Amino acid sequence: MKVNKYRDRVEEKLNDYLPKSGELADSIRYSVIDCGKRFRPILTYTIADIYKEDISLFDSSACAVELIHAYSLIHDDLPAMDDDDVRHSKPACHKEFSEAQAILTGDALQAFAFSIITNDNKIEQSIRLQCVQQLSNASYEMALGQAIDMSIMSRTVDIDILENMHSKKTGALLRCAVNLGATISTKCSPKDMRILDSFSKSIGLAYQIQDDVLDILVSEDVLGKKQNSDIEKNKPTYPSLLGMDNSQIMLNEYYDKAIDSLDKLSVDAERLINLTRKLQSRGF
Amino acid sequence: MKVNKYRDRVEEKLNDYLPKSGELADSIRYSVIDCGKRFRPILTYTIADIYKEDISLFDSSACAVELIHAYSLIHDDLPAMDDDDVRHSKPACHKEFSEAQAILTGDALQAFAFSIITNDNKIEQSIRLQCVQQLSNASYEMALGQAIDMSIMSRTVDIDILENMHSKKTGALLRCAVNLGATISTKCSPKDMRILDSFSKSIGLAYQIQDDVLDILVSEDVLGKKQNSDIEKNKPTYPSLLGMDNSQIMLNEYYDKAIDSLDKLSVDAERLINLTRKLQSRGF
Repeated sequence: MKVNKYRDRVEEKLNDYLPKSGELADSIRYSVIDCGKRFRPILTYTIADIYKEDISLFDSSACAVELIHAYSLIHDDLPAMDDDDVRHSKPACHKEFSEAQAILTGDALQAFAFSIITNDNKIEQSIRLQCVQQLSNASYEMALGQAIDMSIMSRTVDIDILENMHSKKTGALLRCAVNLGATISTKCSPKDMRILDSFSKSIGLAYQIQDDVLDILVSEDVLGKKQNSDIEKNKPTYPSLLGMDNSQIMLNEYYDKAIDSLDKLSVDAERLINLTRKLQSRGF
Repeated sequence: MKVNKYRDRVEEKLNDYLPKSGELADSIRYSVIDCGKRFRPILTYTIADIYKEDISLFDSSACAVELIHAYSLIHDDLPAMDDDDVRHSKPACHKEFSEAQAILTGDALQAFAFSIITNDNKIEQSIRLQCVQQLSNASYEMALGQAIDMSIMSRTVDIDILENMHSKKTGALLRCAVNLGATISTKCSPKDMRILDSFSKSIGLAYQIQDDVLDILVSEDVLGKKQNSDIEKNKPTYPSLLGMDNSQIMLNEYYDKAIDSLDKLSVDAERLINLTRKLQSRGF
């Protein structure tokens, strides 16, 4: 399975990119290195794989998307936000350092993500520009999604509001991870880009419903963060709106839809399908 | 004086760029529209002016640099950071809305700044890419500068540490405002770019020393934020290290040095000199 190879690669590249000394280097490395599922960069690399591209062209974007994800988790965990003390089975950034340092670490990581894409001279300028365009739009959407999430806490909402929130909060960056891969690949046609965009929308939704389900089913030591945190915060979730069984049916339907949408792709999508199935069976 | 024209222009363009509805639109507009001295975008526009360029090519960068500045103020004012309740003579973003919303408003503004540059189709792609490169580097430096600022609170430091902190916290973005203008101008030679970079370094330092001085001399109703906030927070400043008189001499020397450095510029720098003199005599 290539997933492990890609996970190792993103780890190595992040390690190379991130500052090794100076202000915030400790808190940046603490929050990024050796933690997280790396699902977003693995997606980007898998797109490179199915188009048989030179994988080194995808490093900066794969890492940048992971850094935007990492920054969002640091800010989401802050006391004023979701107030979570544990992340990746260790104290959250603001607990290990301070709230001020956690805010600045997130801020610095967001800027750094754009910086590493623009500085990647291996990639044609127009492509780099498109990548920054996509990533900045996704990062903006993500902040809006988190704002909706905060605003609906303890409120009764319908499934459309929940879906809108998640399509921004989680979906935008997942789609971006796929679209960055499709943008950098010279062999990915406009038709394939549309197919992959549709694929990424479906897995974005499936992934979030699954997160809601796992939050209830899985213990803290496996999850790496607090169990039942949604219920305790009175957050509307798919299980709270649809029930557990229907949520599980729904997430499997979205994963199936994602895989079905790959049928018409111009290249062999086996590795992307395998990754999706692996994701579908994830336990945390 | 063209300064007022540029101030009106950046106001109008920010108004056009920023979202008018949706999540965070209120707090984004509250924190950006009709407030601030707009010194950074005015600098960018003045570079366009001395090279007699089409000013509309500078709108996205002028606004982007102001948005990065605005986001940094929102985060700096947070209770976990400088804990300032008043900004631009009104409640700080986190007082008017909430801490969570202020964090997200800053996050969204940072992403939005990169987005408006990358989406500006009037500008050649390679230039847009350079602008994002410069702005992301400056934004990253700024976060490091604020981290130093937090770490030296209540500590005795020497003038080198103070200067390093300010060159990152305030200087990087001021330099960027000038360099963005120089980058977009097709008539600005590499030699002129070096001269302008040196000019911007000097005014960056002068500006910060002046901020420290004004914090002591000027009352809250003129300053638009709390007077003596540095002293109350036990922050090392130029006046606390060098005394008030020496600080004033030093800031004037830096302004003079900035103006002297423009002597060798290939174009008439009168408007840039006038702007610098205006800045030197600012009262808030």
